[in-house]
Amino acid sequence: MKKKIGVVLSGCGVRDGSEIHEAVLTLLAIDRNGAEAVCMAPDMEFPEVNHLTMEETGAKRNVLVESARIARGSIKNIKDVTAAELDAVIFPGGFGAAKNLCDFAVNGADATIQPDVARLIREMAQARKPIGAICIAPALIAATLGKEYAPTVTIGCDADTAAAITKTGSCHQKCPVTDFVVDLQHKIVSTPAYMLATCISETAQGIEKTVKAVLDLI
Amino acid sequence: MKKKIGVVLSGCGVRDGSEIHEAVLTLLAIDRNGAEAVCMAPDMEFPEVNHLTMEETGAKRNVLVESARIARGSIKNIKDVTAAELDAVIFPGGFGAAKNLCDFAVNGADATIQPDVARLIREMAQARKPIGAICIAPALIAATLGKEYAPTVTIGCDADTAAAITKTGSCHQKCPVTDFVVDLQHKIVSTPAYMLATCISETAQGIEKTVKAVLDLI
Repeated sequence: MKKKIGVVLSGCGVRDGSEIHEAVLTLLAIDRNGAEAVCMAPDMEFPEVNHLTMEETGAKRNVLVESARIARGSIKNIKDVTAAELDAVIFPGGFGAAKNLCDFAVNGADATIQPDVARLIREMAQARKPIGAICIAPALIAATLGKEYAPTVTIGCDADTAAAITKTGSCHQKCPVTDFVVDLQHKIVSTPAYMLATCISETAQGIEKTVKAVLDLI
Repeated sequence: MKKKIGVVLSGCGVRDGSEIHEAVLTLLAIDRNGAEAVCMAPDMEFPEVNHLTMEETGAKRNVLVESARIARGSIKNIKDVTAAELDAVIFPGGFGAAKNLCDFAVNGADATIQPDVARLIREMAQARKPIGAICIAPALIAATLGKEYAPTVTIGCDADTAAAITKTGSCHQKCPVTDFVVDLQHKIVSTPAYMLATCISETAQGIEKTVKAVLDLI
């Protein structure tokens, strides 16, 4: 039986959803390591950003429907997924992780977490099942688990984001783009990816190592 | 100076645009081989498909704007790009290659090609610069160049699509998913990817080899 790795998506595009390269590279690394990706996303609206002008259009899109593009239609509503059916879970980055899955992008350490996302992260932590978090997604994990677990995560080296992570009760650790940080006690693995990367191959290196580290912790 | 490889996108999502995995894996392979991707797409509308239900919604999106999601905003209007500034060009698959860049999906061998796409393909062929085509995109190349050049391409082994390719004046060659076909005379490299692939790692294998073969032909 293949290990089942949840991949929580937040839309389809770096400015209003999942960072597409990070999401695809996560799916590739899971498959190449002989595990099975279980894609999921919340069924909720978000403000659309035009990725040519980088401005909000005023229109809304749906996180689950747009995430289905990355998952080629094979995706679940996260409200129907429990930690019991997963061996690990990984959160790719993109602004969607900080704007849709929670509102860290607006409220920092005081972020409100989307309820089903919060439930799944807590279930995974309670079950001591590994959690991977890429790019800005460690801020989501920090905001969800900070007070109770004080996990150690990275977002690379951005001082403001690192300060907000520290304010959640979590610990921020600096990390180069091609590497990752493991919190062995809480089985949380994180990597900076496009928080620092200047090209897709740098992002790929960090994600390949992170996915491997998550699988090794199962 | 890095070699400049055009990557022609057709939207963002397998059912109405570029196949996202194929596009990202193409960008990764270009970067890993030390070349530079130049993403481009036509500025035109297309009918939106909901990737959860796989049905058309009745709404329109814009090929260039949606392709910008895959390119993280770094993308050109294809009408502003000539073969003179490229060392090679690669077309990822997805229905967008057969519905937006041309209408092969509807009209088969009698397909009309989007004018700037047709111009760039012809310029590349005339300059004997390499062309890569992934998944269904070889049908676009066949429909554009068939009568004049009779290129050899693959789409895997689908009999109906292969017949339509033959009808354009091109030659279809069967090919397994992890391999590729080279037409040395016309410097055209093609691979089946998700025409045959059952998982992302199979797609990746074919695309990595195809990109390498395209670069070797420069």
